[in-house]
Amino acid sequence: MKLHFIPLILLPLFSNAQGSIDSLFIKKMSDEILTNGKAYDLLYELTKKIGGRLAGSPQQQNAVIWGKKNLEALGADNVFLQACKTPNWKRGGNDYVAIVDVNGEARMQPLAALALGNSLGSNGLIESEVLALANFQELEKRKDEVKGKIVYFHSVFDPTKIQTFKAYGESGAYRRSGASRAAKYGAIAVLIHSLSTAPDNAPHTGSMSYDEAYPKIPAVALGPSDAKILYDLAKKGKVKAQVQTNGFFLPDADEFNVVAELKGTEFPDEYITLGGHLDSWDVNEGAHDDGAGIVQTMEVLRVLKSLNYKPKRSIRFVLFANEENGVRGGNEYANQAKINHENHIFVLESDEGGFTPRSIGVTAPPVQFANFQTWIPLLKPYGSEITFGGGGTDIAPMLGVNKSTILAGLIPDSQRYFDLHHAKTDVFENVNKRELLLGAVNMAAIIYLVDKYGVK
Amino acid sequence: MKLHFIPLILLPLFSNAQGSIDSLFIKKMSDEILTNGKAYDLLYELTKKIGGRLAGSPQQQNAVIWGKKNLEALGADNVFLQACKTPNWKRGGNDYVAIVDVNGEARMQPLAALALGNSLGSNGLIESEVLALANFQELEKRKDEVKGKIVYFHSVFDPTKIQTFKAYGESGAYRRSGASRAAKYGAIAVLIHSLSTAPDNAPHTGSMSYDEAYPKIPAVALGPSDAKILYDLAKKGKVKAQVQTNGFFLPDADEFNVVAELKGTEFPDEYITLGGHLDSWDVNEGAHDDGAGIVQTMEVLRVLKSLNYKPKRSIRFVLFANEENGVRGGNEYANQAKINHENHIFVLESDEGGFTPRSIGVTAPPVQFANFQTWIPLLKPYGSEITFGGGGTDIAPMLGVNKSTILAGLIPDSQRYFDLHHAKTDVFENVNKRELLLGAVNMAAIIYLVDKYGVK
Repeated sequence: MKLHFIPLILLPLFSNAQGSIDSLFIKKMSDEILTNGKAYDLLYELTKKIGGRLAGSPQQQNAVIWGKKNLEALGADNVFLQACKTPNWKRGGNDYVAIVDVNGEARMQPLAALALGNSLGSNGLIESEVLALANFQELEKRKDEVKGKIVYFHSVFDPTKIQTFKAYGESGAYRRSGASRAAKYGAIAVLIHSLSTAPDNAPHTGSMSYDEAYPKIPAVALGPSDAKILYDLAKKGKVKAQVQTNGFFLPDADEFNVVAELKGTEFPDEYITLGGHLDSWDVNEGAHDDGAGIVQTMEVLRVLKSLNYKPKRSIRFVLFANEENGVRGGNEYANQAKINHENHIFVLESDEGGFTPRSIGVTAPPVQFANFQTWIPLLKPYGSEITFGGGGTDIAPMLGVNKSTILAGLIPDSQRYFDLHHAKTDVFENVNKRELLLGAVNMAAIIYLVDKYGVK
Repeated sequence: MKLHFIPLILLPLFSNAQGSIDSLFIKKMSDEILTNGKAYDLLYELTKKIGGRLAGSPQQQNAVIWGKKNLEALGADNVFLQACKTPNWKRGGNDYVAIVDVNGEARMQPLAALALGNSLGSNGLIESEVLALANFQELEKRKDEVKGKIVYFHSVFDPTKIQTFKAYGESGAYRRSGASRAAKYGAIAVLIHSLSTAPDNAPHTGSMSYDEAYPKIPAVALGPSDAKILYDLAKKGKVKAQVQTNGFFLPDADEFNVVAELKGTEFPDEYITLGGHLDSWDVNEGAHDDGAGIVQTMEVLRVLKSLNYKPKRSIRFVLFANEENGVRGGNEYANQAKINHENHIFVLESDEGGFTPRSIGVTAPPVQFANFQTWIPLLKPYGSEITFGGGGTDIAPMLGVNKSTILAGLIPDSQRYFDLHHAKTDVFENVNKRELLLGAVNMAAIIYLVDKYGVK
């Protein structure tokens, strides 16, 4: 009888002791990161000394060298580059949009504007009437009026969505496909309201793509205040505008994922990956997007090494190439994983900004997800829940390698992200040191737990 | 038998229906605030057109007029002023601290410095050796070395505390009582490390008070980087410094709480109060501290009026006077409540900055607290938990009127607050519009629920 009781008594004790060992180690990591963290200093280097890092730019090449050097210095077992070809889009000059005529009266009112990434230049100055549309529904209704005009979509962010990524998902359709939707009916250029939550007039660029079936017309995002002015004028009267953009593609560039590894001591063939993307848009420093994810990834390596942690499983720290306008880095990482028959059990991305962490979003089947949720008490003191659904653009291709790979994403507070996302304002000064470091704490915690317990 | 089943079926339906009515109304308030909110524009006026508002300053008087005018315009049933006398401290000029000698070698190194609020001036230039101390323990150990010296306390913020208010509570003792603790042993001035989390060199002022038993020596906060330089030099060698401050008191000033009221339709004698404090320090715009709480309070009034909500209970919207260096406004509000035998059931303050809300902190007995917690599902979509423990400096005196009054505080994310709290950097530009408005959403929600259901 006594033997029967032993497990009943010892199991909870053991489990509490385990929990307490884990909570102590996570606290140790947190204290180390918040006291001696290097993520903020690394971000300073990446943003201020290297700068904007669009695929194909010299800055992106410098960033690869910088990333490799620093990952080596942080003590990775090995650091290697994964070559990939990426789009090589160039803005080609200053983007220009102006109102030049309102109801027959000449006017010269330049509007804050940024051509969308991957959009092609106008081949000189375009001038035409503006057709202002609330949305795609109105485009379909008024398709007969589109021919020869400059179409403006009033793609404002829905301010009532508490999770700003939901609003981004909705308005984002106008940035991604507005040009070809309008070109289908003969538009000669498309303008959109920037995907912005900021009470300012900064235009926000971002990726678009053309439907090959239609002419590849210029596509431009307007600053929010100017966009509202244009919409109001063009809804009430007849507005003529000028547009000039200069985008073009050079032949594909040679780029690299930078991959650092800590070899697993028990299960070296089980891989855990965390990362962010090294590239950014050309118009800013890519501080939140995604300098934050890059330096948080490096910080996790730093803290594991500085606490002399020997992982059971192999952990990969990846600085992905070309998220913004091609995802070629993420695809190549998945491609190599497939070729090398790597068993990736868990992949985590940080690409939603360096803000206070609110959750680790995990996409996993119910039983495994329930297991992740048992860790909530260990993460909660550092700000994170574990919620269902999460991943990242760079790591999504990993599902093509193995459907059972669990994808996850760091989910920080989302209120400020779209104030500066893809705008000139995404600079180092707008990143808060403690918020950035706290993100790294939560990433380190979940990586530690997955390494220790796997994803059963 | 059928009759027995009816309640079983209808009760949950009724309760769900109630929950759904509440969740719909809260959503309506949230949509209205996030779409048409005026808090950000009001904050612009308060910070940029009025500015820093220390008790006794002309700006504080302008702020009272501004507050009254706007609360009336927002449609309060009535707006009145509550007079109180407040301390009238003046900085009196530029605060000056410099290292002038290191190990016998002359040097001239001015340090970023701000005299602490309520501290008295140095009466000209003081020059003496610096005794650098890690903490009060070291002061007690080395008390015989203190006489005639300038004492520096290395009161750094503990970066490992995830809730920054905990670290503030600890280091805060050096600001509040460091001067008299050192004067007791003969110090001629006290310097402290600013209570700051920022990776910058901005000094942070804040309230201090003297123990009447000891000489009232100058008390100054140093910028974090300069403080570390001084500490390192003075711990290793012999440092002489100069200090000059100019603080003094004028006779008490005539100040006012600004109180707006919506009369209750069912229980007009049950009061619900929400508020923030109108005053700020002299060196900044008091944007987060506590312009945010002021305009959020006004926003709650605005949204209730614009949705034509008729409260059951009487709701008071209070802009408190003189939180920073006297709490005379808060005391007078409680005093008037006592004199008028008012029954205050719930008092909420927002005075922890206009950041993303994380919780409504409620100080209530277990049964009532459990009742508050049933509202978590209604608040969670807008970012807030309901956690135990909360209040505010201005509303704490209400417990002296009635111990059963429930105090609560809006608890926003605390990572950035002590970067700018009481420093020059607490300006409008550092407040995010969505974060500010979201705080108002959560305040409106809890006020609505307490008004509707009481605090049983």
